[in-house]
Amino acid sequence: MDHSIQTVAIIGAGNVAQHLAKGFMDNGIRISAVFSKSGDSAKALAIETGARLVNKLVDLPPVDLVLVCVSDAAVAEVLAEIPEEFQVAYTSGSVELQTLPHRENLGVFYPLQTFSKVKEVNLFEVPFLIEAVNEECAQALFNLAWKLSRNVRFASSEERKKLHLGAVFVNNFTNHLVFLAKEYLEQQGMDWELLKPLLKETFEKIQINGPYDAQTGPARRNDQVTIHEHLSMLKTNKKEIYDVISRSIGNTYNSNDNK
Amino acid sequence: MDHSIQTVAIIGAGNVAQHLAKGFMDNGIRISAVFSKSGDSAKALAIETGARLVNKLVDLPPVDLVLVCVSDAAVAEVLAEIPEEFQVAYTSGSVELQTLPHRENLGVFYPLQTFSKVKEVNLFEVPFLIEAVNEECAQALFNLAWKLSRNVRFASSEERKKLHLGAVFVNNFTNHLVFLAKEYLEQQGMDWELLKPLLKETFEKIQINGPYDAQTGPARRNDQVTIHEHLSMLKTNKKEIYDVISRSIGNTYNSNDNK
Repeated sequence: MDHSIQTVAIIGAGNVAQHLAKGFMDNGIRISAVFSKSGDSAKALAIETGARLVNKLVDLPPVDLVLVCVSDAAVAEVLAEIPEEFQVAYTSGSVELQTLPHRENLGVFYPLQTFSKVKEVNLFEVPFLIEAVNEECAQALFNLAWKLSRNVRFASSEERKKLHLGAVFVNNFTNHLVFLAKEYLEQQGMDWELLKPLLKETFEKIQINGPYDAQTGPARRNDQVTIHEHLSMLKTNKKEIYDVISRSIGNTYNSNDNK
Repeated sequence: MDHSIQTVAIIGAGNVAQHLAKGFMDNGIRISAVFSKSGDSAKALAIETGARLVNKLVDLPPVDLVLVCVSDAAVAEVLAEIPEEFQVAYTSGSVELQTLPHRENLGVFYPLQTFSKVKEVNLFEVPFLIEAVNEECAQALFNLAWKLSRNVRFASSEERKKLHLGAVFVNNFTNHLVFLAKEYLEQQGMDWELLKPLLKETFEKIQINGPYDAQTGPARRNDQVTIHEHLSMLKTNKKEIYDVISRSIGNTYNSNDNK
């Protein structure tokens, strides 16, 4: 029995849908149909992929996989509308497979990456986390991911949720700290571009030294004079964040618990 | 009158001293002497640069500049021991020029970058911030920095302090968030390497989209269900940091004040 997925219908037309659709096409997987509530972007994606634009989920043509690339909150609702005969997977990091109504062939096809409209992403390095309600479906999804990436793993919903939490720290929170630095300097009439070489080096250094050894600065060396001076320069959310992270750094390096 | 600095004595033998010494040598500036309280690293730096190792600051040979590359807290003390006839500069971001005892020729030569032992840094892109007690000294330091970098500016102590505060967010704090994600996943028995492609993309995306537009995730889309679930998975410092940053992201995107 050949479980190889050759044709896919894509539900959704956001960043994940677009990047995966491109990855599939580049690797010989055919996009047979596209459905999205936001008509315009679905139309664009359908044209780009040569797929049929479907207006109702009951009108989906026969495909090897229906891939649901919608927001976490919409997954259950969309799944309920897809006819039972289809093999289905969704791309959400935080929706647990067990919480969804049972279907014969249902799985998770989760790329652990942030996708944006304007930037290409090298899918070959992106971790894909696979889970499914049965072994056959899991294997079919694994093989499909393997056509896009050399970083494919099986992961339970619980593991996926933990990775998603880590991803929030590594992506959302670091990004916000850079935003706060930019906002602060701009409010002070200064050129935040001066921090860009440091930003670049910061992330190269993490890759090489790891984040524990890479740490420097007032909180690491327990320089309370500088910390208090900095706190006096800040207000509201920036002050609160400066305080809580500095204390966390202090506790990390002044106790031996976390080494 | 030629203010060009051709010979330098380096005080200190840490990461900043080593990277700047290498930059000077690569650009035809001679390191005439090295002094450091930590004898071994100073000896190594002296050998590497062909400089004389000096055991007392009163024994410094004649040089165009004495560059003090010591920690913020030690700057004043070291300056007090350097004979008055020398032109002196220090590399600290947070020590204000006005707070130091007056000398005839004193300035600041501050590279806005994080330096580490194991990693080369391209000095040519590093912003150097220059300040001095007189115009002539400022110009000499500017010209010296210009030999290393194409990103040299004059900046007051107040401006330098604000940039240093921004640098703490962009470097120290982002680095710590990555550490916390790594620590969390390792405590859960998981492979934090899975987050590395995301980490890489995060910082490329900031460069391209800017940190405001690059933001995604539960806090940005005000997904309180996921936020509460994540908070329930965390304890102590990680929980506190998750909470305060998520609220800050929420306020950034749910009000129009910060756009």
